[in-house]
Amino acid sequence: MSYPSTIQQLVDSFAKFPGIGEKSAQRFVFYLLRQPSQELIRFAKLIMNLPDAITVCRVCCNYSEKNPCAYCVSSSREQSMICVVAYSHDVRALERTGAYRGLYHVLGGTLNILDGVTPDKLRIKELMERLRNANKKIQEIILGFNPDLEGESTALYLSKLIKPYDLKITKLARGLPRGADIEYADDITLAEALKARREL
Amino acid sequence: MSYPSTIQQLVDSFAKFPGIGEKSAQRFVFYLLRQPSQELIRFAKLIMNLPDAITVCRVCCNYSEKNPCAYCVSSSREQSMICVVAYSHDVRALERTGAYRGLYHVLGGTLNILDGVTPDKLRIKELMERLRNANKKIQEIILGFNPDLEGESTALYLSKLIKPYDLKITKLARGLPRGADIEYADDITLAEALKARREL
Repeated sequence: MSYPSTIQQLVDSFAKFPGIGEKSAQRFVFYLLRQPSQELIRFAKLIMNLPDAITVCRVCCNYSEKNPCAYCVSSSREQSMICVVAYSHDVRALERTGAYRGLYHVLGGTLNILDGVTPDKLRIKELMERLRNANKKIQEIILGFNPDLEGESTALYLSKLIKPYDLKITKLARGLPRGADIEYADDITLAEALKARREL
Repeated sequence: MSYPSTIQQLVDSFAKFPGIGEKSAQRFVFYLLRQPSQELIRFAKLIMNLPDAITVCRVCCNYSEKNPCAYCVSSSREQSMICVVAYSHDVRALERTGAYRGLYHVLGGTLNILDGVTPDKLRIKELMERLRNANKKIQEIILGFNPDLEGESTALYLSKLIKPYDLKITKLARGLPRGADIEYADDITLAEALKARREL
């Protein structure tokens, strides 16, 4: 005998969540079983309404409740620079710093040919169209990808595509993170920190 | 600026799941955003219907779609022994072994006074009532708790309560698990394996 079918179906659904296996999925279902009925209904309605409540901004492709999103219509944001990121949560991380006041473009991932993430799977076409329609308003493209293989190859690919537009193309600096220990830093990071050293 | 409110509310809900923090909760919501709308509706309906679909068996207190549950009404199970466990998933683990054909009783946890899990929070009253009404049909109570402090104290507490009924009370054997290495076994396990050694 196994779990009752409703429990088993929910376990199977949760087990497909990123990073979640059978055991955690079971814990989630038993956690839900301990919640009051009205809390479950509230939670389920949020999930059910997700496609109606959340849309992809037609300008920057970020998840948003409005279309275009709040970043794209805000007059207080600098209109001359676009920071291209892989995911929505990268936008949030950059916003949290308070150090960036420009626009965004969310690709929806980074190039990974082996996993089938080819350029047509990302919102690169939308970015290029944005640049074409920008009438020289955009002066800088910041490539804000993770410093890994996929991030670097996406940056390389995009920089070649964007080159004809004669814009400033930058990427986030590589170097030692705050609190790092030189002794334990990996070779590539240390080499990059050395190469990009700054005068005091 | 933060996430759209629907996303933030879902992140907050998922962040309350056992073992899940803010980051995983965000990944869950973005995973859901990538799912087709009908899959979200199916998933949400399962959650919403959980309280109606799943009940607690009035005999053994296990989660079930029927009441009494399939274990309690099955004539092919041995009616003379009850294995008392903490949670539903322990029932499933024991069933998977195929080595037990008796009945179950699910307490809903183990005693943990510091966390406020006192005897009245567990389904001990239901177990005692079951024993009182059993008319000597029950001959053995197996205490199937984890070999930790909470499990051992729950076993001790229950064994004192059950003693007047003059039943055989057993607990799961302690010893070296299959594949263990004596050199790395912890002292308590090794001592218990020694104490419970068997003749070949």
